[in-house]
Amino acid sequence: MRVVLAPDSFKESMTAADAAAAMARGVRSVHPDSECVEVPMADGGEGTTAALMAALEGQWRTVRTADALGRRIEARYGLTADGLAVIEVAESVGIGLVEPADRDALRANSAGVAPLVIDALDAGATRLIVGLGGTVTTDGGAGLLAGLGAIWLGVDGTVLDPRPGALLALDHVDLTALDRRLADTTIELACDVTNPLLGPSGAAAIFGPQKGATPEQVPVLDGVLARVADALVAAGRPDVRELPGSGAAGGLGAAFLALGATLRPGVEVVAEAAGLDDAVRGADLVLTGEGSLDRQTLAGKTPAGVAAVAARHGVPVIAFAGRLGDGADELVGRGFVAVQSITRGPGTLADALREGPANLERAVATALRIRALG
Amino acid sequence: MRVVLAPDSFKESMTAADAAAAMARGVRSVHPDSECVEVPMADGGEGTTAALMAALEGQWRTVRTADALGRRIEARYGLTADGLAVIEVAESVGIGLVEPADRDALRANSAGVAPLVIDALDAGATRLIVGLGGTVTTDGGAGLLAGLGAIWLGVDGTVLDPRPGALLALDHVDLTALDRRLADTTIELACDVTNPLLGPSGAAAIFGPQKGATPEQVPVLDGVLARVADALVAAGRPDVRELPGSGAAGGLGAAFLALGATLRPGVEVVAEAAGLDDAVRGADLVLTGEGSLDRQTLAGKTPAGVAAVAARHGVPVIAFAGRLGDGADELVGRGFVAVQSITRGPGTLADALREGPANLERAVATALRIRALG
Repeated sequence: MRVVLAPDSFKESMTAADAAAAMARGVRSVHPDSECVEVPMADGGEGTTAALMAALEGQWRTVRTADALGRRIEARYGLTADGLAVIEVAESVGIGLVEPADRDALRANSAGVAPLVIDALDAGATRLIVGLGGTVTTDGGAGLLAGLGAIWLGVDGTVLDPRPGALLALDHVDLTALDRRLADTTIELACDVTNPLLGPSGAAAIFGPQKGATPEQVPVLDGVLARVADALVAAGRPDVRELPGSGAAGGLGAAFLALGATLRPGVEVVAEAAGLDDAVRGADLVLTGEGSLDRQTLAGKTPAGVAAVAARHGVPVIAFAGRLGDGADELVGRGFVAVQSITRGPGTLADALREGPANLERAVATALRIRALG
Repeated sequence: MRVVLAPDSFKESMTAADAAAAMARGVRSVHPDSECVEVPMADGGEGTTAALMAALEGQWRTVRTADALGRRIEARYGLTADGLAVIEVAESVGIGLVEPADRDALRANSAGVAPLVIDALDAGATRLIVGLGGTVTTDGGAGLLAGLGAIWLGVDGTVLDPRPGALLALDHVDLTALDRRLADTTIELACDVTNPLLGPSGAAAIFGPQKGATPEQVPVLDGVLARVADALVAAGRPDVRELPGSGAAGGLGAAFLALGATLRPGVEVVAEAAGLDDAVRGADLVLTGEGSLDRQTLAGKTPAGVAAVAARHGVPVIAFAGRLGDGADELVGRGFVAVQSITRGPGTLADALREGPANLERAVATALRIRALG
């Protein structure tokens, strides 16, 4: 029997790799001779690099860079032997790195992402997977592009800082010094946000407020994003402002798209990179899971993406979670044979998190014992 | 497919009948054409009458009686159309009816059980199942027997109250007025306590302290129990003081045994009365469960008893619980294919209790869907 273990991380309890290993222990406790294929998964959000590095046996690299406010930090990304770099933009310019009181939408920018891209190119990466989301920026990727060689200029030729507050004076951009290696680099954006760059569904209107933008700043930021987009078009780049996801990560989506990146749902990008399709082909069973399963799971979360791959091959899927939230039952029959909580009973979240690996192993073993009855 | 649903109650959440019904809903949600046989179960403790009345479509009857301290109460028992009465002694002289501060081991007695027995006999019962346990008494059943017609007497012929404090003066017992119908009545004691009446493992030493006996009172109570046993032997009754379970329920076990009762593990008595064996014969699957499953489950709890019946017929058993406690995993392979918690995730006990029926239904459906994969 061949079983594919393709969970996301169980946040604060297990990485995806830990979860896959716990699942494999559960399978082997019931079927010692089974072939267990561990494919740690993610959906482009937190844990994407860890999952892919585990799945592809890549290495972590650490880079000196800056957070969205320009404060010096170290950030990590992953690189595989065959030149795939996996970068989560939130690792450098993430919202989690800036306290709510310190959030400043007119100042925050994405320049801190560039050193990771450059380090990857220096290390020989020819393909980037970028986990796009969770930033505290609304700069349209101006910071990133500046870090890669773009020069943002005012009417009088003044070089502008790539902060929204400074880019109010933006007239045009000079891309002649842009890192030339980017032209030969494949960039895949792993992203479930489909918002356009501008307007009422755009980066400023929808995501600005949680990044510290006041109601008065939202239209100002929207104007800056429009200026950035205009400048890129004027410099010969494609107009991406209406593409789905151009408004992701404060417009970092637009900047990457303007560099020629493609954008797809995160779990699809990760599944493809991790080789999930090959793993699932011919398997008898796929097990997936995440910390919580609920109505939102079908909206692009990892278990739904895994189920979609399994469905292509007609392989049944069971999903496990620390918690079955509202609407979890609706998953049954929509790609999932069954959804199962791994908890032992009522108790605190802290206990459940601590017991996660043991509980997951047990729950998987239980499911396989019950399956063997049929 | 035929599935037998034979759970105990999930305490404070579902009666055994409620649990069996929830299980049946879960089964039918996956296999609408299945035959679901609901056999609410119990182990002789709380819920035994309810389970058997549900299983056998019996009626509740209410009787005016007294608690262990002689205070007027109403107590209930069950009676089936074919003359089986099911009485839990704790319904009248239970420890739960006397606040800890009011417990008085020298005063508490089992007289309150007698009106239930008499009412059952008046109503035509020819067979009694007595759930034996949980009393606040240590009177050797002297109160019960007094209520059934026995007269406890001192050396000088004084009639004694059937309280331990009064029975210190016991010389002999007059059984001539004992209810004659008892001779034609089959009495089955459902009881997991195997302690003898007297001595270091006896009713006074082991159970007296939790019933309010002081360290000084324990040997006094042991002496009273010996006097009661001696008097019954002198009156022609068998000497039961060393029989397993004679020390159950403060020696009520001895009194019933002296009346010719038989004593067996509660779940066996209930299973037989409920017709579990017939239900399980030829079934495809047995589902059982209880509020908590743990290492103690194998020590005579309902799921273990159900598993023993299923094992005789080679039918696999899955057990469900609100909580998998310490050692629950040890049940696997010892009569159980699998043990499964029904909770959705971490949370309060109160929520888990309230969601019990829905969670049990879901857990059963999940198991059957997974089983159908095999």
